[in-house]
Amino acid sequence: MIMKEITSVSNQQVKDWKKLATKKARQKENRYLLDGWHLVKEALKAKQPITKILVTPTFKHIDELELPTETELISISEQVAKQLSETKTPQGIFAEVKITQTNIDPTKVSGAWLFLDGVQDPGNIGTMVRTSDAAGFKGVVFGKNTADMYQPKVVRSMQGSQFHIDLVSADLLTWVDAFKAQAKPVFGSELNEAARSYDQVGRHQDFALIMGNEGNGMDPELLNKTSLNLYIPIKGHAESLNVAVAAGILMFQLID
Amino acid sequence: MIMKEITSVSNQQVKDWKKLATKKARQKENRYLLDGWHLVKEALKAKQPITKILVTPTFKHIDELELPTETELISISEQVAKQLSETKTPQGIFAEVKITQTNIDPTKVSGAWLFLDGVQDPGNIGTMVRTSDAAGFKGVVFGKNTADMYQPKVVRSMQGSQFHIDLVSADLLTWVDAFKAQAKPVFGSELNEAARSYDQVGRHQDFALIMGNEGNGMDPELLNKTSLNLYIPIKGHAESLNVAVAAGILMFQLID
Repeated sequence: MIMKEITSVSNQQVKDWKKLATKKARQKENRYLLDGWHLVKEALKAKQPITKILVTPTFKHIDELELPTETELISISEQVAKQLSETKTPQGIFAEVKITQTNIDPTKVSGAWLFLDGVQDPGNIGTMVRTSDAAGFKGVVFGKNTADMYQPKVVRSMQGSQFHIDLVSADLLTWVDAFKAQAKPVFGSELNEAARSYDQVGRHQDFALIMGNEGNGMDPELLNKTSLNLYIPIKGHAESLNVAVAAGILMFQLID
Repeated sequence: MIMKEITSVSNQQVKDWKKLATKKARQKENRYLLDGWHLVKEALKAKQPITKILVTPTFKHIDELELPTETELISISEQVAKQLSETKTPQGIFAEVKITQTNIDPTKVSGAWLFLDGVQDPGNIGTMVRTSDAAGFKGVVFGKNTADMYQPKVVRSMQGSQFHIDLVSADLLTWVDAFKAQAKPVFGSELNEAARSYDQVGRHQDFALIMGNEGNGMDPELLNKTSLNLYIPIKGHAESLNVAVAAGILMFQLID
């Protein structure tokens, strides 16, 4: 197996990969980087468009790696791995993956969907995608003002669930309208006068759940369009729940 | 109001405060640091033993600050605030708080309790304490190998819930034995042959729920002692749930 070798952190290719941590560079290059064996393995299993795989000389699972013919294998030094990774002890494997736009027609989907309205914390977003997968949701729609799905911390905390369910960047108003036109319930998650306790609305097969911004909640225009707003009764003195915890409680309670 | 002023980051007192980020220094000094207005306000409200309050000249809520007579007010520079804070934009207020050992007799408690067995991620721990508060739990017991409750990231992510419910560092085996001796159920959260689905065991007033380590699960000795182990059925392809999300789903489902 003939491999290109990149050992210097000042190599232009290393700089270009490093830049993929920014949204601007990802949009320009139409590429993003996966870091770590679990994610790369899941991406290979899901037949993602992987253009390059980068491995360090000490990467342990090299024998388990089965690459598609179009994927270039590149050897990188430990220094380069450290430069590219956001973790302290990189596992020594990365994949450069093409970004493919997922265009899904909201009038033609079925099942349960999570809508993210202005959610900002990458860890919360990744955890919600992972929980959606576990709960049996069909997909997650990233609305405007929600952090980018290819941001390294989002990618990492999704833990491979991004390859199991559909992730879409889209205008949530369009998706809400499409669901309502088909008489599918769209549940908001903000306390208002008409809000109902989350465990009093039954279980559903086709519906959407909207989670809002950590501090400011949902966009009022969107909130105005929901079929029903749900709240989780707080019994103690905590002011609120973490958004990913709240989403988990709601998703497992609502899905049929 | 006469205040001591500390403007240099090389001041010995600043170095001592900075060291409180380590467990060793906290144990030696028997002090920890709170960072941010919300936490300091909650600590004041809960009549915590605050020895010093540090504020920057630009701190906004100085007029709302009502200090007990024994609390010293110290003016610090923005540079010192930056040095002490783990956040990028510190709010300009800190409190130095005495660590008081909470000795609670497990044979004399009532209500629902969360037991943390070897949980490592500070964000997960803080989020679980916050969720316990919201769900109406009486307290959280930090077992051996669980990260320290005064670690700055744990403190921050508890968001004040540490002042609403009891937090105890103790041997979980002793607590499990005490609960079982009173015929209170102790629920594990690890899938084994006898595990039951979490929504098939009813609601309870007096019980304990044990959450284990993120990667390795529960200590086998502890697992062996539980009344029942619960699992959350995974419908998609995710391998597991985030421990704080799982804890949230279990707590809200189990508590009466």
